[in-house]
Amino acid sequence: MKPMTQQDATLTVNELLAPYAARCEEDLDRLLVEPDTPEALAEAMRYCVLGAGKRLRPALVHMAAEAAGGGPEDLVARAAAAVELVHCYSMVHDDLPAMDDDTLRRGRPTAHARFGEAMAILVGDALLTRAFGILAGAGHPRSARLGAELAAGAGPAGMIAGQVADMALCKVPDGFEGTRFIHLRKTAALFRAAARMGAVCADASGAVIEAMGGYADYFGLAYQVRDDLLDVTGDAGIIGKTPGKDADAGKPTAASRLGLDGARKLGEELTEQAVAALPPLGATTETLARLARLLTHRIH
Amino acid sequence: MKPMTQQDATLTVNELLAPYAARCEEDLDRLLVEPDTPEALAEAMRYCVLGAGKRLRPALVHMAAEAAGGGPEDLVARAAAAVELVHCYSMVHDDLPAMDDDTLRRGRPTAHARFGEAMAILVGDALLTRAFGILAGAGHPRSARLGAELAAGAGPAGMIAGQVADMALCKVPDGFEGTRFIHLRKTAALFRAAARMGAVCADASGAVIEAMGGYADYFGLAYQVRDDLLDVTGDAGIIGKTPGKDADAGKPTAASRLGLDGARKLGEELTEQAVAALPPLGATTETLARLARLLTHRIH
Repeated sequence: MKPMTQQDATLTVNELLAPYAARCEEDLDRLLVEPDTPEALAEAMRYCVLGAGKRLRPALVHMAAEAAGGGPEDLVARAAAAVELVHCYSMVHDDLPAMDDDTLRRGRPTAHARFGEAMAILVGDALLTRAFGILAGAGHPRSARLGAELAAGAGPAGMIAGQVADMALCKVPDGFEGTRFIHLRKTAALFRAAARMGAVCADASGAVIEAMGGYADYFGLAYQVRDDLLDVTGDAGIIGKTPGKDADAGKPTAASRLGLDGARKLGEELTEQAVAALPPLGATTETLARLARLLTHRIH
Repeated sequence: MKPMTQQDATLTVNELLAPYAARCEEDLDRLLVEPDTPEALAEAMRYCVLGAGKRLRPALVHMAAEAAGGGPEDLVARAAAAVELVHCYSMVHDDLPAMDDDTLRRGRPTAHARFGEAMAILVGDALLTRAFGILAGAGHPRSARLGAELAAGAGPAGMIAGQVADMALCKVPDGFEGTRFIHLRKTAALFRAAARMGAVCADASGAVIEAMGGYADYFGLAYQVRDDLLDVTGDAGIIGKTPGKDADAGKPTAASRLGLDGARKLGEELTEQAVAALPPLGATTETLARLARLLTHRIH
């Protein structure tokens, strides 16, 4: 068998994600804007959410729910949309001048470059609040558990801790452990919430929920290692942002710590650890395994 | 009977709020920081939340719950803490340089003045996320309904819409209707969520929940009119911020639109409308009526 090229992997991952992304786009379009939202705010919310992004986190919610036996359609849709809104808000706030000061994201002006800084802060706040509103609005007995998972992943011991650490605003362990500390929180914590929420939607056992979280932790670490590699080797036109920015900012990455080959090897190891951590649900977890392996070879 | 002076009213409102404030302080201290929160972030969260503020919104949660027959202690405590965290986050973000650019709040440096702008953005995000985590963590069948109420009051059709309007980032109606449009969202929407959440905690009927919301709308409008008056007539040492700032910024206020006497009269009318809107639960709503009337005469 011919080894898979990076281009092949990218095409295949996009094919794998396409049906989930299409469904998520519809759900976001339907759920994003509440009645009585001022039009200028609604427009900024749509700009920051609709029509862009791989929808990887919502796909994880759907795939985990399917692997664990499936959940109520509306509940899964809302869980997926809520996770994506948290991801979108985090990008809007991370891009702010006081944070990473980015003006380009997914090949388009960032929120503050487009709408001004005040609106960017407020639209981030709006997306975060709306995420919890969408979850709570399911009116399902498991809505609150989903809210607790999302808050844990996105909150001050999860994703926000990662951004605080990435901005050097708190202590982190020395050396590569510090990089891992940041990646586990800044990137993996929301993947973890997504995979666990999918399992909660399907009313899975505690053991299955835990195993899904373990998968997502390794998945998230592998994803970030790949992101670091693309930051060094990627093409701005393909990855949609300026390559070399992290390296220029002096941020320690897997690539700067381990070299390109070392980082590639680490990414592959983490991917296999993710697959090994999957709950023993038989063939139903194949899509999650396939996604993890494909993403290790993606080019954007 | 001697008419109540402003000093009398302030003393009395503080006495009325004191037991609720003490309880809320304990609950916030217990619930605010999750395990595994980085210490620098935890410190900033505590700075922005603990040891300051009248705790008016959590008191409304408690008073509304009591008026509607009382709710489970842990649920009411969490609802009250969550509403206060949303209030605290909104102040942190409103004070940012790109927003109102305030460096003094409650007589202390604002979050960005104390911890820098990046940490202030992140601590605001952390408090908002933690608010929903605390609610969801109750593990109560009504947790999700409380989350939906909080998201509606705090979100893009509620408090955030008010801030967007106050920053002149969206269209508002002309004249005094525009001021009312802003106040209903920026100030009243969170009071509304607080009062309705108290009623939800007590498993009140839809009619009682609606009536509590109506009370809180008028209460919030009256509160904001009083705030505008204090902005003109207040003492910086007592109100804890620079008076005249809103007027200097050219923001239309009740005082600038109606004059001091007109604004005082409007505040009293709105207060009586709040009291008239209270649900017909007999003597149990007396505390809510008393609070509204006392606040019309407060000096800070």
